[in-house]
Amino acid sequence: MLITSLQNQYIKQLVRLKQKKNRDEDQLFIIEGYHLVEEAMLAGIVDRLILRIGTKYQNPFNDVIYVSDEVMKKLTSTVSLVDIAALCHYVEPKKKLGDHIVMLDDLQDPGNVGTIIRTALSFGYHDVILSNNSVDIYNEKLIRSSQGAIFKANIFHDRLLPLINSLKQQDYTIYGTSLKNGIGLSKIKQKAKTVLIFGNEGQGINDEILASTDTNIFIEISDFESLNVAVAAGICLYKLRVDDLD
Amino acid sequence: MLITSLQNQYIKQLVRLKQKKNRDEDQLFIIEGYHLVEEAMLAGIVDRLILRIGTKYQNPFNDVIYVSDEVMKKLTSTVSLVDIAALCHYVEPKKKLGDHIVMLDDLQDPGNVGTIIRTALSFGYHDVILSNNSVDIYNEKLIRSSQGAIFKANIFHDRLLPLINSLKQQDYTIYGTSLKNGIGLSKIKQKAKTVLIFGNEGQGINDEILASTDTNIFIEISDFESLNVAVAAGICLYKLRVDDLD
Repeated sequence: MLITSLQNQYIKQLVRLKQKKNRDEDQLFIIEGYHLVEEAMLAGIVDRLILRIGTKYQNPFNDVIYVSDEVMKKLTSTVSLVDIAALCHYVEPKKKLGDHIVMLDDLQDPGNVGTIIRTALSFGYHDVILSNNSVDIYNEKLIRSSQGAIFKANIFHDRLLPLINSLKQQDYTIYGTSLKNGIGLSKIKQKAKTVLIFGNEGQGINDEILASTDTNIFIEISDFESLNVAVAAGICLYKLRVDDLD
Repeated sequence: MLITSLQNQYIKQLVRLKQKKNRDEDQLFIIEGYHLVEEAMLAGIVDRLILRIGTKYQNPFNDVIYVSDEVMKKLTSTVSLVDIAALCHYVEPKKKLGDHIVMLDDLQDPGNVGTIIRTALSFGYHDVILSNNSVDIYNEKLIRSSQGAIFKANIFHDRLLPLINSLKQQDYTIYGTSLKNGIGLSKIKQKAKTVLIFGNEGQGINDEILASTDTNIFIEISDFESLNVAVAAGICLYKLRVDDLD
């Protein structure tokens, strides 16, 4: 099938998916570029490939539409013209969690969150839970900066405080991160079951969540300096990587 | 002084500074937003404040121009309207280097480089040297993601290989970073004089530079995963922070 008109009803359906509320309604989202599409195919979440006219792409996957340059531009968000995109369906998150969990409290920057998910997976943390006020998981920039990690990790939004309290009952050690008070990261040890929480780019973790943790960690840096939250998360996740159990 | 016309010659001079070649010619650049302007004032590099009409800003700094919303939009690059901007002059880099140096080999993403400079400073690395093919230091996005760290660090572009060879003669230990071969970061120790090198987002460090190091480091991550270079740099800089000498 070849579609060249922006007025095509199906294309209009796809363009709607740029808004979160429409994605949530349809439980569908669009990704772009070879790397992400291949990661999504491996994850088995691709419903349909969308190829720019003239793009050669060998694949065992049958449901393909071809679109004109103009239509592809309308469907995608990167500045350069994209050869390949894919329509994907949402994944139902697993409520059964692993032993090492990342929580993100009101993070707003999609690039930071995507990067943290990618890093979490690299260090063995497969569950990432975002507070309800955090950025949408299916934000295009988030997906891009995750480099496909969002297709492999178990990610969902939830209210953090009740979940923290429930996980404490299940013998998880809850580590918050803080700019001011707490224990230096170099003194922190990995545990059998860990929750590691990072906070908003400007404000950090909300006070009531900081008060509910077992220990709050700070990273030993020079006075008057600060770290980007994705860098701070990377450092903590490295120090508390899953294969470095005591 | 109040300027409301985009045709004003001085405004045209300032708008030119959006291009690197004009910045280099005039040795001037523009920054925007309260935080960066205040950091730049502390660093003593502000030549003139640029305020949006109606902005109240108490400061001991006399040279101020006021501009209309339209002019401010033309001068700045953030989507939201900016209240304050500043014209700054380039800083002459110090050729006398400290004992702990970061080198960036052909990094292209201004956000990554700004973030790395911010992180370097946080862990006591005050010298950051970029290969000549790396992104421009005065790129607006780089400055923004550095959160003002570029006004405090000593940063310049240079040919890395001759410099590495010269620093080796001065008893620096040269650590490269590599995805594949090398020694796991957890086994690496800080030294009295260190150079830490990070490579291009896609290709990593150039082969001839990797071959010139004393040791190449890799970060122990799960198979099939990867890290963003600013995160990887954060982890290495934390592990080899200056105040953690053996």
